[in-house]
Amino acid sequence: MSGLPPLLPLVSDADAPPEVAAVYADIRATRGGDFINNFWRVLANDPALLARTWADLKAVMGKGSLDPLTKELVYIAVSVTNGCTYCINSHTASARAKGMTDAMLAELIGVVGMANETNRLVTGLQVPVDEEFLAR
Amino acid sequence: MSGLPPLLPLVSDADAPPEVAAVYADIRATRGGDFINNFWRVLANDPALLARTWADLKAVMGKGSLDPLTKELVYIAVSVTNGCTYCINSHTASARAKGMTDAMLAELIGVVGMANETNRLVTGLQVPVDEEFLAR
Amino acid sequence: MSGLPPLLPLVSDADAPPEVAAVYADIRATRGGDFINNFWRVLANDPALLARTWADLKAVMGKGSLDPLTKELVYIAVSVTNGCTYCINSHTASARAKGMTDAMLAELIGVVGMANETNRLVTGLQVPVDEEFLAR
Amino acid sequence: MSGLPPLLPLVSDADAPPEVAAVYADIRATRGGDFINNFWRVLANDPALLARTWADLKAVMGKGSLDPLTKELVYIAVSVTNGCTYCINSHTASARAKGMTDAMLAELIGVVGMANETNRLVTGLQVPVDEEFLAR
Amino acid sequence: MSGLPPLLPLVSDADAPPEVAAVYADIRATRGGDFINNFWRVLANDPALLARTWADLKAVMGKGSLDPLTKELVYIAVSVTNGCTYCINSHTASARAKGMTDAMLAELIGVVGMANETNRLVTGLQVPVDEEFLAR
Amino acid sequence: MSGLPPLLPLVSDADAPPEVAAVYADIRATRGGDFINNFWRVLANDPALLARTWADLKAVMGKGSLDPLTKELVYIAVSVTNGCTYCINSHTASARAKGMTDAMLAELIGVVGMANETNRLVTGLQVPVDEEFLAR
Repeated sequence: MSGLPPLLPLVSDADAPPEVAAVYADIRATRGGDFINNFWRVLANDPALLARTWADLKAVMGKGSLDPLTKELVYIAVSVTNGCTYCINSHTASARAKGMTDAMLAELIGVVGMANETNRLVTGLQVPVDEEFLAR
Repeated sequence: MSGLPPLLPLVSDADAPPEVAAVYADIRATRGGDFINNFWRVLANDPALLARTWADLKAVMGKGSLDPLTKELVYIAVSVTNGCTYCINSHTASARAKGMTDAMLAELIGVVGMANETNRLVTGLQVPVDEEFLAR
Repeated sequence: MSGLPPLLPLVSDADAPPEVAAVYADIRATRGGDFINNFWRVLANDPALLARTWADLKAVMGKGSLDPLTKELVYIAVSVTNGCTYCINSHTASARAKGMTDAMLAELIGVVGMANETNRLVTGLQVPVDEEFLAR
Repeated sequence: MSGLPPLLPLVSDADAPPEVAAVYADIRATRGGDFINNFWRVLANDPALLARTWADLKAVMGKGSLDPLTKELVYIAVSVTNGCTYCINSHTASARAKGMTDAMLAELIGVVGMANETNRLVTGLQVPVDEEFLAR
Repeated sequence: MSGLPPLLPLVSDADAPPEVAAVYADIRATRGGDFINNFWRVLANDPALLARTWADLKAVMGKGSLDPLTKELVYIAVSVTNGCTYCINSHTASARAKGMTDAMLAELIGVVGMANETNRLVTGLQVPVDEEFLAR
Repeated sequence: MSGLPPLLPLVSDADAPPEVAAVYADIRATRGGDFINNFWRVLANDPALLARTWADLKAVMGKGSLDPLTKELVYIAVSVTNGCTYCINSHTASARAKGMTDAMLAELIGVVGMANETNRLVTGLQVPVDEEFLAR
């Protein structure tokens, strides 16, 4: 562990009540590995929050009309814009596991930087929306 | 035009000095159409800012190790997280022109929502970064 | 008035209780004009909040080691980064009254855009702080 | 170095390919010193991103209608609002090198705090923009 | 409806497929009224996203160790900090229905403003966490 | 102390000029304890900023139409949304001192996460405000 301690303790496998143990088991089965990262171990202090968050993430991040790697890139983009250090570290690890190369990461961050810049140029000059964009 | 007026006027083709006209011409050539959206027309009050921003955007958003549609999805994700109405409207239009369907849009926004949620869960509980993520 | 209605009504001069009237009078005396903008008229629903906010703003935005125009530019930079439309419109008006030209505005927004971009590049790549910067 | 490791390695002088070495040389020539801070060394993993970002920053932060110190103060204001620790540390160092005193820093942060407060008061009460502000 | 059109159409009762109709029915039963606000009608373009979001919101906002009005106040605080106009308008309506008075609203927004101010003072001066706070 | 050093030094009791000493004394009297946390000790470099911020916080966070614990929960919600680590650590300590349990904290963070999610869903799909919400 690095940095400051969490606000609630990490729930180990030994301390996990049945509802938590069930989620841990499903994380392991879904990911095909034993590792449970700290995010889930802290959420486990509130078993309902843990179960809901894991079910949602599994539903959202799976294959749909967008592929899982694209979703990880989007997740990183949001996490960078929000400045969430943990999330950047965990989702770049996930994205790499799904095929993101160093070149893709650098290019992604370049897009994120550019989007943040033009978002502020637009807002700073109060650019009005073109009627052309409103014809859905 | 909808909404409040911009802080600087829209620069029409007729009022464009040569450096601005050159950028407008390149935008039209690159995009294969006559339409110049308000973002560029407001930036044109500062020709150096216009030229630099357009050159950067062209460089960043073209094909590289990520494809242009993926980059548009990332752009939307950032714009939503920053709450930039203009940018959401303009980049969803660009993304649709590059193949984004309604199903992809809804799925994208679902990921963006989820990422914003878990970013705050992580921050709110001060989850420490796992050592496993730091082994680059 | 443009846009959606406020969550609490605008307090007119006629409806202002004595504590509010006193703040309105001080705003007029300080600014040398009759105009009281909507911000103060909405805050006036909570006279203590109005009085405190006005006293703070007067203390903070006056001349100190930074001049008032520089402070307005900083105020705009923050308001753009937060996406506060009202604040951008009101503080660009204030800044113009203190000497900000169109060229200065465009240049300011260019800096704000650039700072937002590099903030995200730094965060996105998790750049560690150089020891050289920590030697205060 | 302090804190977590970067997502891409720092590019040393010895490992720099020619395009990177050229940017490093220009940074040194422009700033009149040997020190290259981590931001550039991480960006150097993507030489095009490095070259573009440096060229932009040099263009944006130089003397124009706003002086370089004012631009650094604006940069700090944005970095604080975005919560970018690296950026706050690096740009306060730059600002101090350009003349910012401790008194100016404290006063700047006071303005940034106040702007963040009133931005939220405005948004929280949904204050409508005064017509007076729209007469450009 | 006010403002710009949504990116996906509002799904009317007549156009709702069975999964959407079921959620609409549960919203009506839970809230004891016929009104379905635009948020749900736009989400309904993606029935799975609609169902998941409604189930989560119902689980999260009900009575637990915090009462429902307190949760609405927290929701408003987040929405103001994120600058989400729709959310501010919808959740202040919900909070009023649960007993929030004008005085409570003004006081809440005062706290939100203050928190945003001190958040930036802390970040702007890079205040280190006291060891006293880390003894959980 | 943990983490990076502050940008301005911590002002000890021994170094405090009279205006600072007066604020320190009032903090101790109000809180009924000797501990002065780093926030105040850094602000003390600018005695006027210290005095103003303390007076405001005391006025805002006391009992009014909202109780002090509810205000602390709101403060945490804002601090999490802004990603202010110091503020999260200091205000969760304050909230616990006023009665917040672990269950309340987890539930609070769940609401904060949910609000951040739906804020982005709303913004991402550009949901228009219902006329029903505008009838104040």
